[in-house]
Amino acid sequence: MKLPLGYRYASTFAGIRKIAKDDLALIVSDTPASCAAVFTTNRVVAAPVEVARKNARGRVRALLVNAGNANCATRTGERVVGECIRAVAKELGIKDQEVLPASTGVIGVELDAQLIVDAVPRLVAGLDTESFEHAASAILTTDTRVKTAFAAGIAGMTKGSGMIHPRMATTLGFVMTDAVIAPAELRAMLRRAIEKNYNRISVDGDTSTNDMVAVLANGASGKRPALKKFEAALTEVLESLATQIVRDGEGARKLVTIDVEGASSDGAAEKIARAIANSPLVKTAIAGSDPNWGRILSAAGTAGVAFDPRAVEIVLQGVSVCRSGVASKFSEDDMKEKLDQAECAIRFSIRGGGRGKTRFWTCDFTEEYIRINGSYRT
Amino acid sequence: MKLPLGYRYASTFAGIRKIAKDDLALIVSDTPASCAAVFTTNRVVAAPVEVARKNARGRVRALLVNAGNANCATRTGERVVGECIRAVAKELGIKDQEVLPASTGVIGVELDAQLIVDAVPRLVAGLDTESFEHAASAILTTDTRVKTAFAAGIAGMTKGSGMIHPRMATTLGFVMTDAVIAPAELRAMLRRAIEKNYNRISVDGDTSTNDMVAVLANGASGKRPALKKFEAALTEVLESLATQIVRDGEGARKLVTIDVEGASSDGAAEKIARAIANSPLVKTAIAGSDPNWGRILSAAGTAGVAFDPRAVEIVLQGVSVCRSGVASKFSEDDMKEKLDQAECAIRFSIRGGGRGKTRFWTCDFTEEYIRINGSYRT
Repeated sequence: MKLPLGYRYASTFAGIRKIAKDDLALIVSDTPASCAAVFTTNRVVAAPVEVARKNARGRVRALLVNAGNANCATRTGERVVGECIRAVAKELGIKDQEVLPASTGVIGVELDAQLIVDAVPRLVAGLDTESFEHAASAILTTDTRVKTAFAAGIAGMTKGSGMIHPRMATTLGFVMTDAVIAPAELRAMLRRAIEKNYNRISVDGDTSTNDMVAVLANGASGKRPALKKFEAALTEVLESLATQIVRDGEGARKLVTIDVEGASSDGAAEKIARAIANSPLVKTAIAGSDPNWGRILSAAGTAGVAFDPRAVEIVLQGVSVCRSGVASKFSEDDMKEKLDQAECAIRFSIRGGGRGKTRFWTCDFTEEYIRINGSYRT
Repeated sequence: MKLPLGYRYASTFAGIRKIAKDDLALIVSDTPASCAAVFTTNRVVAAPVEVARKNARGRVRALLVNAGNANCATRTGERVVGECIRAVAKELGIKDQEVLPASTGVIGVELDAQLIVDAVPRLVAGLDTESFEHAASAILTTDTRVKTAFAAGIAGMTKGSGMIHPRMATTLGFVMTDAVIAPAELRAMLRRAIEKNYNRISVDGDTSTNDMVAVLANGASGKRPALKKFEAALTEVLESLATQIVRDGEGARKLVTIDVEGASSDGAAEKIARAIANSPLVKTAIAGSDPNWGRILSAAGTAGVAFDPRAVEIVLQGVSVCRSGVASKFSEDDMKEKLDQAECAIRFSIRGGGRGKTRFWTCDFTEEYIRINGSYRT
């Protein structure tokens, strides 16, 4: 896939991670780009998020991303971010405010600015138009694979495999396009698009202090696209990135797609879908390939949304397992086999209900999740 | 401990469970008892809950409890409950409405009324004043131990080890007293007491369709207690039962007590405590004895409650690990050792905040939880 014009990428090992794997990425636009960005809704917000929130309001020239330390709940957070973006701005000959900073990693440990400041010259010296994948690799933490997605004139990378929750979670996502798009248009598009993907995924129901998805449009192609078509392509790229996160959920073996329909509104459908997606009992049942639809029904019942249980149909992998709120006839053995797949589809329909619907993604919950998270820092 | 006067107990194996362990319990009061009861807030409600909700409004003579099948989301649910309580009422020579039914177990599988109806005569024949513990054992499902608590003239039993959530969850709790107490008094007491214990525990954040805690007061002692003192004793019994549930949380190795103080209100404190208690990342860190206070701070940030992160102090096992929102000086190795205990205490204080506070209990999240729940039915 051809990368969008007018961007350069670099990554390096700055020494923030304990292991010698690139932990610092820089993405530079040759010209000031329109920017749209969304951020975590957590009350506790990392210093780079505060700065990025401000700088995203203007044109953006560079994204500076480190992994291995979230620079959150630290004494020196603000100062550290300031020093880092100043170093980048100076080396590139741009303004401090044109740099968007982002961090991911452990919370509550001071981040040594000097490590990054020292790395910036070699980072800038290493910039080229081809190192997109290297940059995408440098931003990962517990992820097991690089996550990228492409469309004509659009390239995106993302990071995240735990603490993934609707309404933004420990996720970093960066999408670059060479299309000509005004900031206001780009922001409206991102706002709509994100509601269909990044805000419809959950790995463990936890949210983070550092989340951010940013889209840059530098206009280097000189072409102003048909906005509807462009938005569709952007949404597709974001959906691909978001579902890659779920697929790579910590310890996850299965991508679970949840479709809810017949709710009183789209918002009500979302609440039901989220309750199902976040239920440890549903997620462990799916890990065990157990067609335990009772847990799905019960989880939906905790969503705080009114519906008639007697009108519920639940379809697993295309097979009705619950109709009118009670068991359908199905073979347990067949279902077990059908659930032993890398993808699992749940459809939750309320017959004769409203027109509210949504699609949501989650993953199964395996013993591996506990292993990963019981020893993150040690 | 002397059991309260005027109650008889029995249990038997009716054949509802797959394994031959008692699965049916009966508790009978010699005289009609004052009753107070609270039920699940799940939208999906089992048939026995619907019936118990009605019957709890009057005087109660008997509790009929089965394990192994929740009789929820079943075609024949209502009819089955009706047949079962009729059989008990007939055998005891009381009214149908004087029987409170309760069920726990798998959802969505038809419960065979005949199994219970056939068991009722031998159940009633077996009633005696001593079989309290046998009854307490018959109501268990994935629980690993019998859970009982006692005070003068009060005896309680409970059941539950997964799907435990504030606001009532898969929990059955039955408390008998021989004190003379009017129904209205008993209800007010239970309402207040439950907010301090059963509604302040969480194992996995999931809630169930069958929850119920009922208190019977049959007045057999002939004594009207000082109400304040009685309420304190009742609250203590309920707290003991509730924390036994958390201690026995599926796969749990640690009881975690969370104290939140300095919130803007008790309600705000509760939201923060619940967010911490339900965070898989916090719970897995505790399983791994990792003093990862950043996860606690971040989880609190998702509670939807305003607080200044810079005013937060977090104390683990009596040791300050975070002060003014950043790391305190502490030895990781010492903390690891301190966290390698069966009990873990988290204190989350907002300095200079309000007077809102709460106590909450949860457990750690181990690989065993996944194992238990990945293969519940198979």
